[in-house]
Amino acid sequence: SKVIRRTRTTWNVSPSFMAKNTFNPIRSIIETMNLSPNPDKKMIALSIGDPTVFGNLRPAETIIQAVIDAVSSGKYNGYTMSTGYEEAREAVAKYSSTPTAPVSAQDVILCSGCSCALDICISVLANPGQNVLVPRPGFGLYKTLAEGLGIKTKPYRLQPENNWEIDLIDLELAIDEQTAAIIVNNPSNPCGSVFSKTHLERILQLAEKHCIPIIADEIYEHFVFPGQTYYPLASLSEKVPILSCSGLTKRFLVPGWRMGWIVINDRQNIFTPEIRKGLQTLSQRIIGSSTIIQGALPAILANTPQSFYDDTINQVKENAEVSYSILSTVPGLCPVMPSGAMYMMVGVDMHKFPKFQTDLDLVEALVTEQSVFCLPGKCFDFPNYFRIVLTVPGELMKEACFRIREFCLLHHRNNQVKLQIDTS
Amino acid sequence: SKVIRRTRTTWNVSPSFMAKNTFNPIRSIIETMNLSPNPDKKMIALSIGDPTVFGNLRPAETIIQAVIDAVSSGKYNGYTMSTGYEEAREAVAKYSSTPTAPVSAQDVILCSGCSCALDICISVLANPGQNVLVPRPGFGLYKTLAEGLGIKTKPYRLQPENNWEIDLIDLELAIDEQTAAIIVNNPSNPCGSVFSKTHLERILQLAEKHCIPIIADEIYEHFVFPGQTYYPLASLSEKVPILSCSGLTKRFLVPGWRMGWIVINDRQNIFTPEIRKGLQTLSQRIIGSSTIIQGALPAILANTPQSFYDDTINQVKENAEVSYSILSTVPGLCPVMPSGAMYMMVGVDMHKFPKFQTDLDLVEALVTEQSVFCLPGKCFDFPNYFRIVLTVPGELMKEACFRIREFCLLHHRNNQVKLQIDTS
Ligand SMILES: Cc1ncc(COP(=O)(O)O)c(C=O)c1O
Ligand SMILES: Cc1ncc(COP(=O)(O)O)c(C=O)c1O
Repeated sequence: SKVIRRTRTTWNVSPSFMAKNTFNPIRSIIETMNLSPNPDKKMIALSIGDPTVFGNLRPAETIIQAVIDAVSSGKYNGYTMSTGYEEAREAVAKYSSTPTAPVSAQDVILCSGCSCALDICISVLANPGQNVLVPRPGFGLYKTLAEGLGIKTKPYRLQPENNWEIDLIDLELAIDEQTAAIIVNNPSNPCGSVFSKTHLERILQLAEKHCIPIIADEIYEHFVFPGQTYYPLASLSEKVPILSCSGLTKRFLVPGWRMGWIVINDRQNIFTPEIRKGLQTLSQRIIGSSTIIQGALPAILANTPQSFYDDTINQVKENAEVSYSILSTVPGLCPVMPSGAMYMMVGVDMHKFPKFQTDLDLVEALVTEQSVFCLPGKCFDFPNYFRIVLTVPGELMKEACFRIREFCLLHHRNNQVKLQIDTS
Repeated sequence: SKVIRRTRTTWNVSPSFMAKNTFNPIRSIIETMNLSPNPDKKMIALSIGDPTVFGNLRPAETIIQAVIDAVSSGKYNGYTMSTGYEEAREAVAKYSSTPTAPVSAQDVILCSGCSCALDICISVLANPGQNVLVPRPGFGLYKTLAEGLGIKTKPYRLQPENNWEIDLIDLELAIDEQTAAIIVNNPSNPCGSVFSKTHLERILQLAEKHCIPIIADEIYEHFVFPGQTYYPLASLSEKVPILSCSGLTKRFLVPGWRMGWIVINDRQNIFTPEIRKGLQTLSQRIIGSSTIIQGALPAILANTPQSFYDDTINQVKENAEVSYSILSTVPGLCPVMPSGAMYMMVGVDMHKFPKFQTDLDLVEALVTEQSVFCLPGKCFDFPNYFRIVLTVPGELMKEACFRIREFCLLHHRNNQVKLQIDTS
């Protein structure tokens, strides 16, 4: 009879490298903070990038009805292709096509939100040990996704003094032999910036020169203030292959529904056929987008009225203007007026607030004293700033800004001296 | 001025190892086959593990209504925790608890289907270079998921002659220093087997002896024929930590909805706290389960009537009995009667069909001549078998079995000789 050796004699179960290296910088930073609001003031969270939390922004009736119709039809219960129903992909292709960059259903992969779209794009292009370039300040998810896979992120600088345009020299210097992709996020979280046509063309030139594909995170596509123009990166690319990631999340005010997508833009067939096949096989890992939402997608994209989009944008723009006008009068603060998305970055001249060592300390005290919570710049790899969200109801927005002003006036070095003198 | 070196001068974009190694064996095998049905006979696909394709099995009205209510309420549009709403997780905990293994909301992680649940479980427990043990015959997804991550799968044998019980000696021999987990699938795809209490206890003893955690793929939980008993593996475990994976997919007849979950069963706190944290962080990669379905989940789990479950099982059982009784009279075939799930494996004595070299050739010819498509055993790493699904309408089931019989009689070696004699 066989003798079977015991290979282990104690329980020793530890998580994989992937689990240990998949970590959310925002969450990690927030967890270390001491966030105890002032019990006398109602908490106003300007921290959460979820436009639905305050109830002032709601999906259009047509959007809800489309889902009710889809589920009632009984037609969308079974498995579909891991990339999604043909009709749903066709609807996204139509929605995403531009005259210069037309795409069809076979260029679309439906995913569980834009997060999953980004995960698949990074996974297909980069190997462990390689790197992807990411904006600084930027959305932490890129790092979370990449590092979990053993892929490095290298930041390139955005310039607050220049409408948050990319410092192209810095971007070019960041490119090395191991660079597998450049992630471009436009419109931007956390900056609210919207790149000009010229700027986007320069980015493309650079990618072309170095033969590096782009992952375009365009989850805030079309989410720009009146008078601003949004250019899909792919519409300007002659050659550079681009994986554009977007979804229903922001513009349609349904982040929880987990409907995102990848659009493959590749006019010179640089990705064909291996990358396409890779995207498809990776989508099989989780088959990630509910058929109910897929079934509703054609109607959602076709029937959502322009007035719905306009209403949302107008509320956000009004909030941007109100907060900008209040905060720009506050000594020591330097808000940067956004052009789109749902955020504004506010610079802090930390020397003016000697009581606080870092933006984290300041943000923490702002919660303790004024019950207003903004995300510290550190969450976006950009200290001496904080980010506010612009999707809160107008009255709360104003109230929050007044409280920030009160807080800053109180803690400003000049006033501290005055207070000391006054009380002496 | 800086001189910036061009690192690459040609486009050379190739997919990552992960993309190349994530491949679906079933798809790859089917793609190599020549599947041209007989134009004179209506195609009957006994290949697809989707109970909804023929329209005879439909989700209960209560299930549909729960989703309509959830979307109409307007309460489930925003982001929630990446592991899911507390109420939804609580509902799963209640649904999954047993007297011996009670769990609570914090033990539940909602995922994009059971596929995503398995992906996260494998990802959290195993590192590249390690291995997970998988059943043979078994569901190909385990290999697809593991190999994409650089994790190996090592098969252990199931015994057709013994109700598809695990060959425990083979399982024990497969365990080595690099074994990170054992995947146990009960009830089984493709076998339709349901393990006895004693057998499950032996599996647990083995895992305990070698200190190896178990991933229990229980997506077919409760899906057993009247008279059979299903034991959740966790309900029998005193010590071995178990990640149980399940979801709405099969029992509730909504595979497209992508609602799956992990239940952490860990009475001795062997997983705590690192593995729990790892599961949570991995769930942040895609935040994968639509809030609409999550919102409906408590009502679905609470209100689905027993009669709905019974109806489904009875149809499947009737199909199992009918096909078993027809196919067991066919010389050269050896069907194994299932006890649950939605499949039956049929052994083929290939020597009896000398015209065909492998089960693939036979299955291919069955399509060409009889327009009946069964999955070849090779898809489950188990040649000389084919798998039929039992969810088709009763009349089609019978028709398909009659055609299989006609095909086998025609090609059986004895009859071939006869035919040759007859025509000589
Ligand atoms: C820039 C950016 N990309 C991607 C995402 C993720 O979107 P989703 O919720 O569709 O996964 C967000 C969400 O905040 C975002 O701000
Ligand atoms: C044994 C087994 N596990 C997991 C799955 C995947 O289930 P889901 O569709 O919920 O991802 C299937 C689907 O066929 C299966 O048969």
